[in-house]
Amino acid sequence: MLSFESDYIQGAHEKILERLVETNREPLSGYGNDKYCESAKEKIRKACGCEEAEIFFLVGGTQTNMVVISSMLRPYEGVVAAQTGHVSVHEAGAIEHSGHKVLTIPGHEGKMDAEELSTYLKAYWDDVNHEHMVFPGMVYISHPTEYGTLYTEAELTAIAKVCGTYQIPLFLDGARLGYGLMSRETDVTLPVIARHCDVFYIGGTKVGALCGEAVVFPKKNMPPHFMTMVKQKGALLAKGRLLGVQFDTLFTDNLYYRISEHAIVMAEKVKDIFREKDKQFFLDSPTNQQFIILEDAEIERLREHVRFDIWEKYDERRTVVRFATSWATTQEDVESLRALIH
Amino acid sequence: MLSFESDYIQGAHEKILERLVETNREPLSGYGNDKYCESAKEKIRKACGCEEAEIFFLVGGTQTNMVVISSMLRPYEGVVAAQTGHVSVHEAGAIEHSGHKVLTIPGHEGKMDAEELSTYLKAYWDDVNHEHMVFPGMVYISHPTEYGTLYTEAELTAIAKVCGTYQIPLFLDGARLGYGLMSRETDVTLPVIARHCDVFYIGGTKVGALCGEAVVFPKKNMPPHFMTMVKQKGALLAKGRLLGVQFDTLFTDNLYYRISEHAIVMAEKVKDIFREKDKQFFLDSPTNQQFIILEDAEIERLREHVRFDIWEKYDERRTVVRFATSWATTQEDVESLRALIH
Amino acid sequence: MLSFESDYIQGAHEKILERLVETNREPLSGYGNDKYCESAKEKIRKACGCEEAEIFFLVGGTQTNMVVISSMLRPYEGVVAAQTGHVSVHEAGAIEHSGHKVLTIPGHEGKMDAEELSTYLKAYWDDVNHEHMVFPGMVYISHPTEYGTLYTEAELTAIAKVCGTYQIPLFLDGARLGYGLMSRETDVTLPVIARHCDVFYIGGTKVGALCGEAVVFPKKNMPPHFMTMVKQKGALLAKGRLLGVQFDTLFTDNLYYRISEHAIVMAEKVKDIFREKDKQFFLDSPTNQQFIILEDAEIERLREHVRFDIWEKYDERRTVVRFATSWATTQEDVESLRALIH
Amino acid sequence: MLSFESDYIQGAHEKILERLVETNREPLSGYGNDKYCESAKEKIRKACGCEEAEIFFLVGGTQTNMVVISSMLRPYEGVVAAQTGHVSVHEAGAIEHSGHKVLTIPGHEGKMDAEELSTYLKAYWDDVNHEHMVFPGMVYISHPTEYGTLYTEAELTAIAKVCGTYQIPLFLDGARLGYGLMSRETDVTLPVIARHCDVFYIGGTKVGALCGEAVVFPKKNMPPHFMTMVKQKGALLAKGRLLGVQFDTLFTDNLYYRISEHAIVMAEKVKDIFREKDKQFFLDSPTNQQFIILEDAEIERLREHVRFDIWEKYDERRTVVRFATSWATTQEDVESLRALIH
Repeated sequence: MLSFESDYIQGAHEKILERLVETNREPLSGYGNDKYCESAKEKIRKACGCEEAEIFFLVGGTQTNMVVISSMLRPYEGVVAAQTGHVSVHEAGAIEHSGHKVLTIPGHEGKMDAEELSTYLKAYWDDVNHEHMVFPGMVYISHPTEYGTLYTEAELTAIAKVCGTYQIPLFLDGARLGYGLMSRETDVTLPVIARHCDVFYIGGTKVGALCGEAVVFPKKNMPPHFMTMVKQKGALLAKGRLLGVQFDTLFTDNLYYRISEHAIVMAEKVKDIFREKDKQFFLDSPTNQQFIILEDAEIERLREHVRFDIWEKYDERRTVVRFATSWATTQEDVESLRALIH
Repeated sequence: MLSFESDYIQGAHEKILERLVETNREPLSGYGNDKYCESAKEKIRKACGCEEAEIFFLVGGTQTNMVVISSMLRPYEGVVAAQTGHVSVHEAGAIEHSGHKVLTIPGHEGKMDAEELSTYLKAYWDDVNHEHMVFPGMVYISHPTEYGTLYTEAELTAIAKVCGTYQIPLFLDGARLGYGLMSRETDVTLPVIARHCDVFYIGGTKVGALCGEAVVFPKKNMPPHFMTMVKQKGALLAKGRLLGVQFDTLFTDNLYYRISEHAIVMAEKVKDIFREKDKQFFLDSPTNQQFIILEDAEIERLREHVRFDIWEKYDERRTVVRFATSWATTQEDVESLRALIH
Repeated sequence: MLSFESDYIQGAHEKILERLVETNREPLSGYGNDKYCESAKEKIRKACGCEEAEIFFLVGGTQTNMVVISSMLRPYEGVVAAQTGHVSVHEAGAIEHSGHKVLTIPGHEGKMDAEELSTYLKAYWDDVNHEHMVFPGMVYISHPTEYGTLYTEAELTAIAKVCGTYQIPLFLDGARLGYGLMSRETDVTLPVIARHCDVFYIGGTKVGALCGEAVVFPKKNMPPHFMTMVKQKGALLAKGRLLGVQFDTLFTDNLYYRISEHAIVMAEKVKDIFREKDKQFFLDSPTNQQFIILEDAEIERLREHVRFDIWEKYDERRTVVRFATSWATTQEDVESLRALIH
Repeated sequence: MLSFESDYIQGAHEKILERLVETNREPLSGYGNDKYCESAKEKIRKACGCEEAEIFFLVGGTQTNMVVISSMLRPYEGVVAAQTGHVSVHEAGAIEHSGHKVLTIPGHEGKMDAEELSTYLKAYWDDVNHEHMVFPGMVYISHPTEYGTLYTEAELTAIAKVCGTYQIPLFLDGARLGYGLMSRETDVTLPVIARHCDVFYIGGTKVGALCGEAVVFPKKNMPPHFMTMVKQKGALLAKGRLLGVQFDTLFTDNLYYRISEHAIVMAEKVKDIFREKDKQFFLDSPTNQQFIILEDAEIERLREHVRFDIWEKYDERRTVVRFATSWATTQEDVESLRALIH
């Protein structure tokens, strides 16, 4: 069965497994205090153009969002996100479970608008009763967003500026960051992100690793005793090497970029396949997730041969579906899909 | 440098890595809904002699303790543990962070005593003010304990009986369970544990896996919507296959038992080495962790050649140290240690 | 200075103070175990036409919402409220601080619509990813709402029916319940509420008490060990008599109804004053809170002589303001206001 | 029935009720923004000899402990208390429910020892694994303690010095502070407390108020947005005047001291009664709580005529009981008790 279901349906890039095997018998200290973690951090610092960056490896995306947000907010603060933000909808209430409200503003194809953010923050502070409300203490964006869309550097700069005005940190969820960085339609690079964000993470799970996300604090602003808070939330991996070796490999010889670029190339081909058949796109995504509006009957037919994600009902007889490529999508997969659709 | 520092300083048993490589390209659903998770669960059910057991794979030990305890307790309840219990001392307050008190009773070489437990519970319920105190809602034991010691089946039965009387679940932390099961001095098997405990976990991280713990609910008592609670605590692994493949391998051809037994054989040799030199043991451990009282000067000398754990000061000039073996300890390691000590 | 600022700007109805003085020296057990609490509960049961009702007295509104919601929800559940609901906006995130998400649906003059609620719940359960989202575990409504509006019995029945279909409790926040019960335009009585809701509270703080809210569980469904959970949240009053005496007094000789009716009569007069001057009402409120749209210049002028609440900007030069009456509003207050406005 | 059960079995000092009646109809802003709160704060500042003190009024003791501790600790920190501390034993786990561990050291008649505290803190920081443990982030003492005992100024200074060395705040729970201040055997005054502690509270509930505790931050160290955190925990009283008027009255004409002194005089008489009959005291309490060891048979006999508190079993046939006096204990009560005992 062909599968374009998501970008985490296969294991890890072979180079990563190879390195895990090679380093397997080396005795290394636990909890991230090993040379592979150190080396990976150094390479990430370089890639971010930020020698001072502090980096911490965590296991998964929801975990990372929850740990970062709850360790940076004060108890009376919440995090502002687009209504469609992952933290707002699809994390089973992990942020609220940690005691903090997710404050939502409208999402536009997954993105928040700097001006609407500014209006929201101004209204909050102007409200005479604001001390009886949740303080907006952080801004959360995802890049690519849950809809595959990307912020431009100008948009990122504008959001960062609003955050600066209100002195609250900007957090970028990069669960699929590689696919954003290698999109053909972006001017946002790792150094750009490191410059504008106060904290962000470089996703591994969805970009070729077995698991793992690299949290980056570019401004010497990692919360004190972060490791203890990570442990306290059950998020500290005993064999930290598992994360260190993976990120060290991803950031060696540009592997992270190369496999992300491959996924983008595959996604462009998928796009072409649907375009050629005049299928309607739900929105224009420049990354590895493509959202197409299909007739329900056609969906039924296709599902016998290929797995993809049912996103949401579009109208009575049509549905939005998602086709995702990844580092693991092959030329053959795409050809088979073409044959199926045509 | 020789290392007896702990049982999580090396990667994973080679068979596990081999299987991860072999299954790597198979497209599999996420979050534990894959055939390897299913197969692993089935094998664990068999090993436990408990066809009804519900099983859930988590990533690490502290995470598992926190998830299990906080999802089984009601808000007004705490968990009873020995004073030296891992949940009480070395988890950075993860249990309290989840809102629950760890209620402690004395530990005897790491173990709790059924009678003392009973006395504690009786005193609680007899106290006219008990509604202003934390309800003891669960009992936590570790097996092997933090000191490498083991409960006998009789002791386990006695504790389970007390729990039954007060109708609170018994939870067994099996972070190092393999080493307990294969000790030469135990009558406690997996089926015995499944019979007496209400929930327990089979440790992977410290017994040959890269990561992973298998939580077993033997009595159809997995809390409803457990998966959502796991997700909410950031503990749900996207690529559940990583845990499924590992446990499937560990429970194929008795690998879990074989590598645990190897560690025990190695530990017996380590024991002999110190015994031959008339070193004093802090306590008699029948598992893979050995606690020896050494002169501080000797410790200084040894540390130049071998890594081991500093446990606690014994007196002015002596210190308790821990030497741990594992599935990865080699005959050569032990011979080198012998040479060093003699 | 005249004041129509809110319904909690004065102390308590004099009869309450009188009873506090009369009973002051009686030695009584703490924590609500006194005869006045018992008597008050009995009277409330009668007023609710519900002999089985379990009742618990708490101190304030936000506290009550937080205690009730967090003690009735399971960890993976959130509470559904109208976007304008007090729990969603004006409680400083108390519900999220207790670990639960407030799930919002549109508000219509403060009220939720049964059909929209049903659609929301259906969509949740139909979503294939719903286990990665917060379970809707309770429905919260306020009556009167934050906008002074009221549900009809038919509306209440419809919402209760939806809750029944999804087997989740319906919670009614009655911080200003008296003013709702005595409105001239309602068919909702205490017995009606007790029949349709799973839990509700009868507000004291805003209806003539110094403090205090009476939580009613009409269906033998008070969560086990509720008192301990109350204590754990710091909400258990040592001198429970303070609440018992107050509610006993409020439910003696219909005091609660009589003072509420007085406030309604006063509110009708306030309404007339603004109506006579052709002022525009923001909405039609049948209770003690009246929302009027005034020119900013007029607001400036009025504020020199009377205190009232600034609600929100209406347009460039007009603002919505709130005039609230209470048990303590006098005929003279209203006459003075008439003189001011005319 | 005679009652020496506790110091919160009667209402409030008559002067307080009188003032509540007198001020009842004044329209005042809510949430503590009224002139009586201001006046009370000013008087407390004077009484503490600390013009800079920030003061916040809360409703009850457990609430105050929970709010103060959880708003001052960082997530990875716990509070150090004597094993018998109220926060450790009798608050239904409120501190842990707020996410923080109560770290215990031995109690000596309810008091902690500065040297043992120092040893504990040193051991924590010397432990190589301390980052995997809960950071001691605050020290909690009660004065009088749960056993009625008092710290001397020298003892307080010593504890404060240890806290200073480790740079953690010292919190003094003064639920019964008045009785401590007016003991004949103390050199600890309010200014002494304000000098040595970083935060403390002056108990109202047990010293003549209907409810209320005054939290004092003497060093300009009230946590930012404390009010919002109080609200978030459901602890913000709408009619703050209720607390303001009470504390204003207590700190007018030395009422707080006078009624406390009265209780001490009564306690001394109670002490004499038991001493004259050669009863054994469990410990020597210089405050309003007296702990006496009585034969179980005698307890049975007495309980028919007088209420007192059963503390704990002393041995097979004897029990420790507590007789408490208060501002409300009369000369007649004591005489009746004498008659009963003799």
